[in-house]
Amino acid sequence: MFATETTSTLNPERPTECDKNNTFVLSPAREFHYEVTPIPELRTSRDVRVRVIATGLCGSDIHYWQHGRIGQYVVDAPIVLGHESAGIVEACGPDVENLAVGDRVALEPGVGCSSCETCRNGRYNLCRSMHFAATPPYNGTLATFYVLPEECCFKLPPHISFREGALVEPLSIAVHVCGLAGNLQGKSVAVFGAGPIGLLCCAVAGAFGAATVVVSDVVESRLEFATRFGATATYKMEHQSPEANAESLLSKANAQVAGGVDVVIDATGAEDCTSCGVYALKRGGIFVQAGLGSPTIAFPIGQICDKEATLKGSFRYGPGDYKLAIQLLDSNRVRLESLITHEFSFAEAEKAFKNVANRAGIKTVIYGP
Amino acid sequence: MFATETTSTLNPERPTECDKNNTFVLSPAREFHYEVTPIPELRTSRDVRVRVIATGLCGSDIHYWQHGRIGQYVVDAPIVLGHESAGIVEACGPDVENLAVGDRVALEPGVGCSSCETCRNGRYNLCRSMHFAATPPYNGTLATFYVLPEECCFKLPPHISFREGALVEPLSIAVHVCGLAGNLQGKSVAVFGAGPIGLLCCAVAGAFGAATVVVSDVVESRLEFATRFGATATYKMEHQSPEANAESLLSKANAQVAGGVDVVIDATGAEDCTSCGVYALKRGGIFVQAGLGSPTIAFPIGQICDKEATLKGSFRYGPGDYKLAIQLLDSNRVRLESLITHEFSFAEAEKAFKNVANRAGIKTVIYGP
Amino acid sequence: MFATETTSTLNPERPTECDKNNTFVLSPAREFHYEVTPIPELRTSRDVRVRVIATGLCGSDIHYWQHGRIGQYVVDAPIVLGHESAGIVEACGPDVENLAVGDRVALEPGVGCSSCETCRNGRYNLCRSMHFAATPPYNGTLATFYVLPEECCFKLPPHISFREGALVEPLSIAVHVCGLAGNLQGKSVAVFGAGPIGLLCCAVAGAFGAATVVVSDVVESRLEFATRFGATATYKMEHQSPEANAESLLSKANAQVAGGVDVVIDATGAEDCTSCGVYALKRGGIFVQAGLGSPTIAFPIGQICDKEATLKGSFRYGPGDYKLAIQLLDSNRVRLESLITHEFSFAEAEKAFKNVANRAGIKTVIYGP
Amino acid sequence: MFATETTSTLNPERPTECDKNNTFVLSPAREFHYEVTPIPELRTSRDVRVRVIATGLCGSDIHYWQHGRIGQYVVDAPIVLGHESAGIVEACGPDVENLAVGDRVALEPGVGCSSCETCRNGRYNLCRSMHFAATPPYNGTLATFYVLPEECCFKLPPHISFREGALVEPLSIAVHVCGLAGNLQGKSVAVFGAGPIGLLCCAVAGAFGAATVVVSDVVESRLEFATRFGATATYKMEHQSPEANAESLLSKANAQVAGGVDVVIDATGAEDCTSCGVYALKRGGIFVQAGLGSPTIAFPIGQICDKEATLKGSFRYGPGDYKLAIQLLDSNRVRLESLITHEFSFAEAEKAFKNVANRAGIKTVIYGP
Repeated sequence: MFATETTSTLNPERPTECDKNNTFVLSPAREFHYEVTPIPELRTSRDVRVRVIATGLCGSDIHYWQHGRIGQYVVDAPIVLGHESAGIVEACGPDVENLAVGDRVALEPGVGCSSCETCRNGRYNLCRSMHFAATPPYNGTLATFYVLPEECCFKLPPHISFREGALVEPLSIAVHVCGLAGNLQGKSVAVFGAGPIGLLCCAVAGAFGAATVVVSDVVESRLEFATRFGATATYKMEHQSPEANAESLLSKANAQVAGGVDVVIDATGAEDCTSCGVYALKRGGIFVQAGLGSPTIAFPIGQICDKEATLKGSFRYGPGDYKLAIQLLDSNRVRLESLITHEFSFAEAEKAFKNVANRAGIKTVIYGP
Repeated sequence: MFATETTSTLNPERPTECDKNNTFVLSPAREFHYEVTPIPELRTSRDVRVRVIATGLCGSDIHYWQHGRIGQYVVDAPIVLGHESAGIVEACGPDVENLAVGDRVALEPGVGCSSCETCRNGRYNLCRSMHFAATPPYNGTLATFYVLPEECCFKLPPHISFREGALVEPLSIAVHVCGLAGNLQGKSVAVFGAGPIGLLCCAVAGAFGAATVVVSDVVESRLEFATRFGATATYKMEHQSPEANAESLLSKANAQVAGGVDVVIDATGAEDCTSCGVYALKRGGIFVQAGLGSPTIAFPIGQICDKEATLKGSFRYGPGDYKLAIQLLDSNRVRLESLITHEFSFAEAEKAFKNVANRAGIKTVIYGP
Repeated sequence: MFATETTSTLNPERPTECDKNNTFVLSPAREFHYEVTPIPELRTSRDVRVRVIATGLCGSDIHYWQHGRIGQYVVDAPIVLGHESAGIVEACGPDVENLAVGDRVALEPGVGCSSCETCRNGRYNLCRSMHFAATPPYNGTLATFYVLPEECCFKLPPHISFREGALVEPLSIAVHVCGLAGNLQGKSVAVFGAGPIGLLCCAVAGAFGAATVVVSDVVESRLEFATRFGATATYKMEHQSPEANAESLLSKANAQVAGGVDVVIDATGAEDCTSCGVYALKRGGIFVQAGLGSPTIAFPIGQICDKEATLKGSFRYGPGDYKLAIQLLDSNRVRLESLITHEFSFAEAEKAFKNVANRAGIKTVIYGP
Repeated sequence: MFATETTSTLNPERPTECDKNNTFVLSPAREFHYEVTPIPELRTSRDVRVRVIATGLCGSDIHYWQHGRIGQYVVDAPIVLGHESAGIVEACGPDVENLAVGDRVALEPGVGCSSCETCRNGRYNLCRSMHFAATPPYNGTLATFYVLPEECCFKLPPHISFREGALVEPLSIAVHVCGLAGNLQGKSVAVFGAGPIGLLCCAVAGAFGAATVVVSDVVESRLEFATRFGATATYKMEHQSPEANAESLLSKANAQVAGGVDVVIDATGAEDCTSCGVYALKRGGIFVQAGLGSPTIAFPIGQICDKEATLKGSFRYGPGDYKLAIQLLDSNRVRLESLITHEFSFAEAEKAFKNVANRAGIKTVIYGP
């Protein structure tokens, strides 16, 4: 399953003792370097310090490196990237109740203010004061240590490895997306995009009871992956109108989707996919936009009205998503192992970034430091 | 309040006896003529026959006349237009339980199949077999008589006139739109478009408890109407970017909308309004699309994701909307009188169509036959 | 698996031709007899006539036989019982679109009026004019033929037998109950009662993603059945206070239920179970009452307030429940075979009733006529 | 409007300078005394210190005084009671953003932990670590000063007095109750109990658009109050069966409630009212339990099943309730003035407690210190 680039000689499940904080830093000039900094202190009595063991790379990490910004968020000071991580609890504040030193945990890398209206009403992912790892100006997790309050650390089941634990973050995104799609029991779902998020949405939709999950992509080889993640059908997008693509897509899925699919999940952000998805949607259907592409696209809004459809944007994850993601792993209803196609040591972190930039495989994980 | 074109000499509250069905017919060549046809029979034992007294004209009526089609619906045979009507029950089938001859009623002009999945699960407005008045091939209400099952006839409160009763149809559209927007108590709402639907959405949003309702239009004079329908602020759209319009709009509304409005209702279908509305929306906000314009528009979908916003299409009305519309009138929480700017007799129906085509006033009602 | 009472020599999968309607009738004197009646005609153009192949017996059938009434419903005229049935389509009205003669179908045995408020808003199970099989004065399905509109007939997947098809009815009850419980993904559920409905709720809760399903009953042997239907733990109710039973029950389930279970489903109607369930419920939890026992019980309502809990009554099934029940069977997420412990031929129907009255096994099915 | 017991000579709108904290303390022996304590310090950088101006007395305050406990909460150390308060901001922590010294505010007297599952998912009222004023061991607001984080202080509109501001607390309870009842637009509501909470639920239900609000009580004089708070009908409970009371109640309301009311709100906790309410409920209706009486009652649970009704417990208030309560006051959709029947100075606080214990009037407010 693994590509041969894996050069790590670490046994990551048993980190050696460590008394410094090694970080992998991106400069505003978009160059990487390593920097040793003091071990970060706990900020509150409920904080824990986690030794980071595995970190997945996300498209946003690569985008900051290559473009120096994402929308309003600009790398105008050195920053540590990385936000998909798992590790081992090394220190606990005095009021920590549910964690102990040595616990293996996945990290939810965003901390809301807990006092604004969105935090108080249970949508902390929309908090304007969110401190989110690797979103400027907040440092990420490509470091020896990372400090978080205990409610952001989720114990991993014994049979889940750290590298799978790192992917609880994108899995939680998929859980959030599928949650926004409403009750999926017995429903038909079309997923656009067979990258990590699309594949995980496919897997979660199946775990949530979808009867039909048809996955579309422009790359044939990615579609082969989709069947491992529970796709009941796949469709290669053609150079034709969105209506024609929608019709072909529906004919590839089973009879149940006559009249359109109940739910569309777009994990591409590509205009062609969004339009095709809207045409493929059943009257009264739900479309969840999970991928960011061009900020403005041509959009068949008339279809949304005619069908009284609902389009929901999805932003990160919220209450309960991490917990449920881990429950899906614990019960083996979702498996992450085959998603990880490449692995690099911390010493080769830049090579890992280049690997993702080259669109090699599905998911790349950095081990260590 | 009324324009002087009103030439009716009828006393429409007391129709004379009538033994023929006079209809106002649009030909496929897009020409109108009158035609006398047999009085329509009751089709089921729960049907009633209503003598039509007042009929409002809707943009769709004018569109069929001027363009011969709306999307897939083509006037390829003679058709009677009109679907916003009120009248008097003249005959009841043997199983009619809640209506009697002489009852004054507003007509819900669409009858679903009642056996498909959407009908059975309470979204009959999405029924693919819907028989909807004045949507080809089904005749509308610009006739002496119209036949409907009793559950589509809603008794008018004594203080509501027939011409107001005719407007229960567009009011039900507004009720449906505002219902899709979720709980509006204490919320801030931006409405785009100060035509009949926009104004009614403004009024209903206020009745549903919105604290702020800011109405936008490109025509200054329409905005003056908006204040009569409960707008707490108005904004004239300028020739500038959607972001700039959104900023100006929010500054016209009160302090509560810092960070954006909770809800946007677009009753224009215009790309400029849709974009501005998305930029004006608060994180986690809801956007209801109530107006049909260009089927495809440039759309800031990135904002929908960043804000985890929801866009809902609205299509006609569903269970409970007519009942609630009439309750709003009964309790005087919404008043329709000032919406009606022009009135024509049935004999001058074509003049009424021309009046709407010229965009004169807000709402035109045809009385009679 | 089957008890030896099965004396049927029929091969029920291939019924012989038949030109009479054989019915099994309960008299107001609570005595059974067989009666040959004319083959029932289709009532509407969308009706189908189904040859009944298998019928499960339900507690309500037995109750009508033994007590002559359930609440306001009185057997004051001869009535055919039975409402859990599957069969073969034998005749179709001219407007039937989705069924053909020979189709194997499960029957949804209630037909709403489709025009009242509850029918129109998607809760047809609450229709006051519902015609429900085997609820006086409407005849049930213990007959050669039964006539229903096509939307009440659901095609069985090829690998589902008729006797399993008969149990789509109680399975739909469980689907409805679990649907009322809200999103069950990753949740903890306590089910009271390990009879047919309790076991099916257990199975459906698991299929709907519940992480923990603890089943309670007073009969040890029934609890053994529960593990076959996906229970993650079982608890034998003891003679002690509801609080004590709740505490013991929670300690039998896993650590996740500290603080109480997310959801309670009561399929007993017994005061002890209801109380225990309320005490076992987490703050903010949901309790679905699926079983009818004493109409009035002592109830710890203070707990409902303190916990801001929700208690929902469940009544039969509504839109989408049959469709989803069949999808659960089709995808093998729920299996019904082991629920059926006894089988009788139509000629021995009274023996079947006695078997259920004696509380033998879990589920009894009558084959034929 | 005010009773003559009001002996206050304070002008409470302009408090004099004050350099001590005067508190009114209940001992475990259930005796009151005054005690001067140090001015309380801000605990966090987002805290504010409020000079308390007016405090309403609640049944729970009286219950702690007379019984020394409510359920598990025991007065085993001296405690300051009072939790319905308004006052003036006197000091702000350095990170306070939206408040300034001199602001007139209503106090939300409970502070959740903000890190547990219920807090994070937007139901902080269910937090097990909630610090709630006047619930042992936490002191209440019958003191010169009270310290809260800024998000728990809500600015009063200029036309709202401090004594009305004190009643934002019970008004928020009513807002929460009516919010649990779902969309009330055009609905029929029965409220049991014409005490402060029942009357406020009546007023809020009307403001939320209920078409019919029928209020029941055993005391005729209280029913007279109900009409001032928007009741469309009143019903005096009789000594008869719950079914008979329900029938009489429905006949007092208007024709719309044939078949039962859409919503029942019980603000009594009395078994007779709960039962009557369940019988008065329409099929599919919602019952919100807002009053605490006997922890266990005889309850017609069969009706809940037959009607597929929903019973919801209501506990305090949650996100957005205070904000909406104040918006209702700001827009004059609810008026509190006539609810306050008695007023006492802080020096006569015990007299105020006795007044409430004697069930005099509707609402008693203590002014000062």
